[in-house]
Amino acid sequence: HSPEGFDCVINGEYQVSCLRDGSEVYFPFSFLKNYFEVYGKIVSEDGEERFEWFHSYSKIYHPKGKYDPKGVFMYFDNYNVEVRERVKCITASEGVPVSTQWEPRGYFYPIQIAQFGLAHYSKYIAEAEPNRLVLEDGDRTKALWFVADGASFTRKFLTDINNFVIEFNTQESLNSKGIELKLSESLTDFILNLNLKFESNGSVEVIVEDKEKKSNFHLFYVCSDLWITSKGNKIFHGLGDCNSWRRLTRDLLVDLQKGQSLSEKGKRILRSRARVTAVIFRGVGYADNITLSSSEHLAHFYDAADWFVKHQDDEGGWPIDVKRHLGAGVEDLDAGWYSAMGQGQAMSLLMRAYYSSRNEYYLSAALDAVKPFQALSEDHGVKAVFMDKYIWFEEYPTQPSSFVLNGFIYSLIGLYDVAHAPDSMGSEARDLYIQGIRSLKAMLLLYDTGSGTLYDLRHITAGGAPNVARWDYHSTHVNQLLLLSTIESDPVFATTAKRWQSYMNGKRAPHN
Amino acid sequence: HSPEGFDCVINGEYQVSCLRDGSEVYFPFSFLKNYFEVYGKIVSEDGEERFEWFHSYSKIYHPKGKYDPKGVFMYFDNYNVEVRERVKCITASEGVPVSTQWEPRGYFYPIQIAQFGLAHYSKYIAEAEPNRLVLEDGDRTKALWFVADGASFTRKFLTDINNFVIEFNTQESLNSKGIELKLSESLTDFILNLNLKFESNGSVEVIVEDKEKKSNFHLFYVCSDLWITSKGNKIFHGLGDCNSWRRLTRDLLVDLQKGQSLSEKGKRILRSRARVTAVIFRGVGYADNITLSSSEHLAHFYDAADWFVKHQDDEGGWPIDVKRHLGAGVEDLDAGWYSAMGQGQAMSLLMRAYYSSRNEYYLSAALDAVKPFQALSEDHGVKAVFMDKYIWFEEYPTQPSSFVLNGFIYSLIGLYDVAHAPDSMGSEARDLYIQGIRSLKAMLLLYDTGSGTLYDLRHITAGGAPNVARWDYHSTHVNQLLLLSTIESDPVFATTAKRWQSYMNGKRAPHN
Ligand SMILES: [Ca+2]
Ligand SMILES: [Ca+2]
Repeated sequence: HSPEGFDCVINGEYQVSCLRDGSEVYFPFSFLKNYFEVYGKIVSEDGEERFEWFHSYSKIYHPKGKYDPKGVFMYFDNYNVEVRERVKCITASEGVPVSTQWEPRGYFYPIQIAQFGLAHYSKYIAEAEPNRLVLEDGDRTKALWFVADGASFTRKFLTDINNFVIEFNTQESLNSKGIELKLSESLTDFILNLNLKFESNGSVEVIVEDKEKKSNFHLFYVCSDLWITSKGNKIFHGLGDCNSWRRLTRDLLVDLQKGQSLSEKGKRILRSRARVTAVIFRGVGYADNITLSSSEHLAHFYDAADWFVKHQDDEGGWPIDVKRHLGAGVEDLDAGWYSAMGQGQAMSLLMRAYYSSRNEYYLSAALDAVKPFQALSEDHGVKAVFMDKYIWFEEYPTQPSSFVLNGFIYSLIGLYDVAHAPDSMGSEARDLYIQGIRSLKAMLLLYDTGSGTLYDLRHITAGGAPNVARWDYHSTHVNQLLLLSTIESDPVFATTAKRWQSYMNGKRAPHN
Repeated sequence: HSPEGFDCVINGEYQVSCLRDGSEVYFPFSFLKNYFEVYGKIVSEDGEERFEWFHSYSKIYHPKGKYDPKGVFMYFDNYNVEVRERVKCITASEGVPVSTQWEPRGYFYPIQIAQFGLAHYSKYIAEAEPNRLVLEDGDRTKALWFVADGASFTRKFLTDINNFVIEFNTQESLNSKGIELKLSESLTDFILNLNLKFESNGSVEVIVEDKEKKSNFHLFYVCSDLWITSKGNKIFHGLGDCNSWRRLTRDLLVDLQKGQSLSEKGKRILRSRARVTAVIFRGVGYADNITLSSSEHLAHFYDAADWFVKHQDDEGGWPIDVKRHLGAGVEDLDAGWYSAMGQGQAMSLLMRAYYSSRNEYYLSAALDAVKPFQALSEDHGVKAVFMDKYIWFEEYPTQPSSFVLNGFIYSLIGLYDVAHAPDSMGSEARDLYIQGIRSLKAMLLLYDTGSGTLYDLRHITAGGAPNVARWDYHSTHVNQLLLLSTIESDPVFATTAKRWQSYMNGKRAPHN
């Protein structure tokens, strides 16, 4: 005998085509995956096929040791913020991402910028030294430059920076030839890094070839405030102020991808098909230390940290200039709100920048960032109080309060990092951290559904269905608890992390 | 082609034998039912077989109208408390159930007694008038009695009760013949109801025949404080005080079942196989109004209400004389605790007894039952406070507080019933009810897991995994909210009930 088709009636509501073999009835995965929201597919290994069923799609990263305010930030060495679709581009003026998540024209989102910086810092710590090829430094390494008719090119010692640099003087027009460095076919890295200063309205052009199509993309970095624009195979990033020395670090593949996305969403050239073929300068200016690397994490990290130093306001905050609609029953946040998570992640970033550079202004910015934690949400701060009892720091300082869990814990990690500032400078942060941990211990299990976690407590404050965390937020919760378990003695963090992780494999809390 | 065996790997942990048919993979229900705890079976209808899948096994009862403190209590007309296995017996002394749930020797559990009474009250309202056959009333209906040698039998007018009764004087020995009434084979009812008074240590015996086996069971109601005992086919219930007039109402099949269970757990003679063949009196005494009925709900109801009047203590409570172990992290309750649910259900019962009888002592007991709501759990009351803010009434007044949801709502219903007492006698209950509803509105969604409900909040107060409500408690939550939605204007009760009911069909709250 063999299995036969059989009708299955689901909760008296609808019918599914099953198979029956004796007393056993078999349900199709196409039904199960929707009914239970599980995952799975047929996989093949060594010619053997099988079906792999997964209860969740997320991953847990077990910390390797005690959390260190100077070390890798959680598992952020696995993050790649800039390739996310909701990142419009990395600005060439400040080297930070622009978000389009809640506003398609784009805006600076402190959380995203901090995560970009923390990811690069963590990769810097976790990864091996990059390949780094200096193409031209005006001094020890000299490249062969093709100089257009009527243009000039020299190498020159500048006393203000005490260094040999290249000096060029060409037409500004992007159609003109400029001075051009053609690159060897053997180069396979895509991080361009150089020092740059224009005396005029100049530009840097980088040509990237699609090896398969034998066609070229042209990346232009121009003296302008624009973020990104494209026209055909030309992609433009604005350098902002061109007339002072600055270091420009570009992930050329990211710039290319973002440019391509402007015309065709999600399109992305494969690394293996791309090759950097030329660097061209136009206008009047100087360049130095032109380098192609496999990565320049520290440079990206400092770009992010510098953004926070530059854009911190008088209240110590980084206002978010986009309206935020959280959901029914919760008032929208008007542009200009602070986020405890944004503040916290910035603090984690800035403390690392301070430790790594010993520049006091990073420390100072991190200490100032604590201020919004002292003010209630309705007073433009980030503090909420649960049931008049437990102080909470709000990722979204809404009315009524929303009590987003992961944002709160990120803010606690930021406070922890500042709490460890030298001398007793971190005492204010330390007090807030201690209060926050007390709240977290009291409230953590409010997020436990017995088979997953809740993203926030808006159902308690605003009514309606609980807002269940999708698996990647759930795994963030687990990862955060695992981190806290390395710095807090209360076993609730490790115990809860373990149970919450088991939910990802379909385990459930017992019922009575 | 036909479906073939296929290996399925579950979360990388273990393997299940599936079927594959092209790109569709089928999972056996034997796996699914354990993994997801769903229910189902093959059913046959009109010769057609199909599989019926159920997400839950419980039922929702939609209220027919606004909740009425004088009416049917929820859906308790569907309850049959006495047949539950954890009911040791219905005492013949007071006509109330004895629980063995947490203590095998048995104890009086106010909640069970109240539910027994409320179930019978609700059946009394909801059901049609019973069959009722008077066998002997000493006056208008006279039966044929077989009188043993040396025994006497007369019909006599007693001035103290102003009624004709039968008088008997026989040996006390249960082996003696007594006076016997043989019953017609046409009788199919099993509720025996009579007035009774002994001058000596007498007894009532009822013979129930197993028609198939042609064997007899002997139910003895004896002058003793015992609850129930058995010896072979003889089952003994104690009448308590025999020497005053009292009304005895016995469900003979229940008495038989409880007796059989003493020797063989769960054994139960089928109604269709049983027949009452004789009633025998022994000793010196009187009887009257000997009746066999299909039901005597009001008699059982008053037995329960009278128990509450008789056993209420000076603090207005019904102490529960059994230790209660709730779970890890929660201190055991020592014998003598009050339950807000016990108080509340008693109040619902007593108010109905008052309305139905107009006996003031029922009202008075109901009003006194409010007192333990004013005292905190640690002060032998039933009041807890959630996060120093919301007053709660505890089914189990534990340390730390447990915040059992269904028990709290039952207590609120009891308060509501007393709040509607005549004049302004219910004002104290009304204030407590209003406070309780305020807490319930604020805390209700703490129990919502997005796919079911929690039984209590012990995970918040004592730590550990949330205590998920099994489906019958979940459906109780839904039924309770549906009741509240008929007396409270806040839409949260109906909205939440609807969502919670949808969970029973596998629906889930959305994730982000
Ligand atoms: Ca140089
Ligand atoms: Ca009579």
